[in-house]
Amino acid sequence: MQINGQEYRSVWFENSRVKMIDQNKLPFAFEIREYSSYIEVAAAIREMIVRGAPAIGASGAYGLALAALSAPQDKFRAYLRSARDELISTRPTAVDLSIGVNYVYENTLKFIPDLDHARQVALLAANEFANRSAAECLELGIIGASLIQDGYRILTHCNAGALATVDHGTALATIRQAHKQGKNIFVYVDETRPRFQGARLTAFELEQEGIPHAIITDAASGFYFWKNEIDMVITGSDRICLNGDIANKIGTYEKAVMARAHKVPFYVAAPVSTFDFGCENGEDIMIEIRDEKELKFCGETPVANPNSIALNPAFDITPAAYITGIITPKGIFEPAEASQKVQA
Amino acid sequence: MQINGQEYRSVWFENSRVKMIDQNKLPFAFEIREYSSYIEVAAAIREMIVRGAPAIGASGAYGLALAALSAPQDKFRAYLRSARDELISTRPTAVDLSIGVNYVYENTLKFIPDLDHARQVALLAANEFANRSAAECLELGIIGASLIQDGYRILTHCNAGALATVDHGTALATIRQAHKQGKNIFVYVDETRPRFQGARLTAFELEQEGIPHAIITDAASGFYFWKNEIDMVITGSDRICLNGDIANKIGTYEKAVMARAHKVPFYVAAPVSTFDFGCENGEDIMIEIRDEKELKFCGETPVANPNSIALNPAFDITPAAYITGIITPKGIFEPAEASQKVQA
Repeated sequence: MQINGQEYRSVWFENSRVKMIDQNKLPFAFEIREYSSYIEVAAAIREMIVRGAPAIGASGAYGLALAALSAPQDKFRAYLRSARDELISTRPTAVDLSIGVNYVYENTLKFIPDLDHARQVALLAANEFANRSAAECLELGIIGASLIQDGYRILTHCNAGALATVDHGTALATIRQAHKQGKNIFVYVDETRPRFQGARLTAFELEQEGIPHAIITDAASGFYFWKNEIDMVITGSDRICLNGDIANKIGTYEKAVMARAHKVPFYVAAPVSTFDFGCENGEDIMIEIRDEKELKFCGETPVANPNSIALNPAFDITPAAYITGIITPKGIFEPAEASQKVQA
Repeated sequence: MQINGQEYRSVWFENSRVKMIDQNKLPFAFEIREYSSYIEVAAAIREMIVRGAPAIGASGAYGLALAALSAPQDKFRAYLRSARDELISTRPTAVDLSIGVNYVYENTLKFIPDLDHARQVALLAANEFANRSAAECLELGIIGASLIQDGYRILTHCNAGALATVDHGTALATIRQAHKQGKNIFVYVDETRPRFQGARLTAFELEQEGIPHAIITDAASGFYFWKNEIDMVITGSDRICLNGDIANKIGTYEKAVMARAHKVPFYVAAPVSTFDFGCENGEDIMIEIRDEKELKFCGETPVANPNSIALNPAFDITPAAYITGIITPKGIFEPAEASQKVQA
């Protein structure tokens, strides 16, 4: 992605370190974080320095590569297993994380007892995972752009942009490509409470690309649906089940229901790593419940009654029946057949 | 309403002044503002020191009483007309404001040229309007509580509480009464971006009453609908049209659509002053668009990309078809017949 005219990825490996754009600071500051141990990477994922299912997948993969590089010779396997478990446990909802971490884990194990080789493979596998993820996002963006007609006003929720992936984005990849094709589009950006990933990150990416957009509160889309000023909804996803149910940022389900009520298509865009081939349906997905402080404070500013409790589920489930299609690097599929098609 | 064990109204007249609880400060500070001119009252309404359709109706009525008390003898009528227009122009969407102001205006005019009498009548009329509004809210609360069953989990949006009215509330009046009747209820409180009236004011009122509740982000209700953990939705209203369409705080329409998708009843509660007998349907209602700064900052903390624009409609329209019933002091009516019934 272009940031201030320079090309970046959300996460990458350089000089023996994992580097990430600090997404908690954007867009108010542009800072690169550097981590030299998997424990630091795990903390960064937990604190949402990096977020977005495909981006944390790649971060986990790089985190495990760091673990392999520093694992003690005599306890290599146990150390790696423990690092794997810790990295995967940082965030429970996005499946990309366990897929990325396990991809590096399994490839590395194959080369034991040749530990030098195993360490090299760990890093190669992490880079391969990240590169493939970026390539898939570019591909699904080109495929998904075919759905976007000239003049479309598109609603998106949270940040499903280059920052949420290794590069290009998922929902925003399709929007980027449509814009590159010269289509005249406008994007309604849900601010995405409680962490404002839409207002901060999606709006920032769209500004960087010169794509016309406006931020709205999460519950304001109804007003624009009512005025017939939304032609399409596209979001990313954190996990896609075999039956086509998806998990995504809290609030996604309401957008899907609004779209259905107004006969507006609702698309989900995702790379292959977001498919959980072991998950039957949305009821099987563990929803991360985050700290109520995220709701009750904006920075240091209290915004809620101090003595009340707040519930902070970070994701919700959108049933397949509300999804018009899933945009993948292998094509656009009906939700119920998408898992099968991306494996073909 | 009880605040820290004392009885208050949101707005009242005392010692030649209009007094209001400062709703921008609550719940972090409890401060009473005092105004001795209608111009100050108009500013207070504009700055949302007082908000909520019935509360700004009474505030406007008291503001016009202040104008009558200080209007110059030789230009009484012109001064009063100008005060009326300024008060009504402060906020365009809630009809209660023009109804409250005009009620005082018309009663006062009847006694010209006996200005001493006219001034007395202005204050009497304002008090009468406020008292009637409070009594209606108490009444509709008792009537509406019949809809709430023991064990109900109720979703509400924004603050339709005692603070939004002269006293008792609209949606919260029904919840208060159900709680007083010993029903075991739980309230999901939408935080209500961008000004957090739910997280700040509704949560504060429920805490004061000892009613179990939790704050959620505006788009999180979908998650609880999906889990079948919401039994009923009740909101207030800023304007009710002849056909039963209503205007209310931005985000209300999405709750109504979610309720319909989950076969959950959606009720609107309002005193008679919220009915606009001159308004055919929702398309005729002017929606106030407020400053984008409300979205882009929480207090002094920026929460959005600085170079992006934000759209900030303060209200939306919920079509009659999505409303199960309108709870009024005269009974609970189907939306399309409510205007006729409350006039009967």
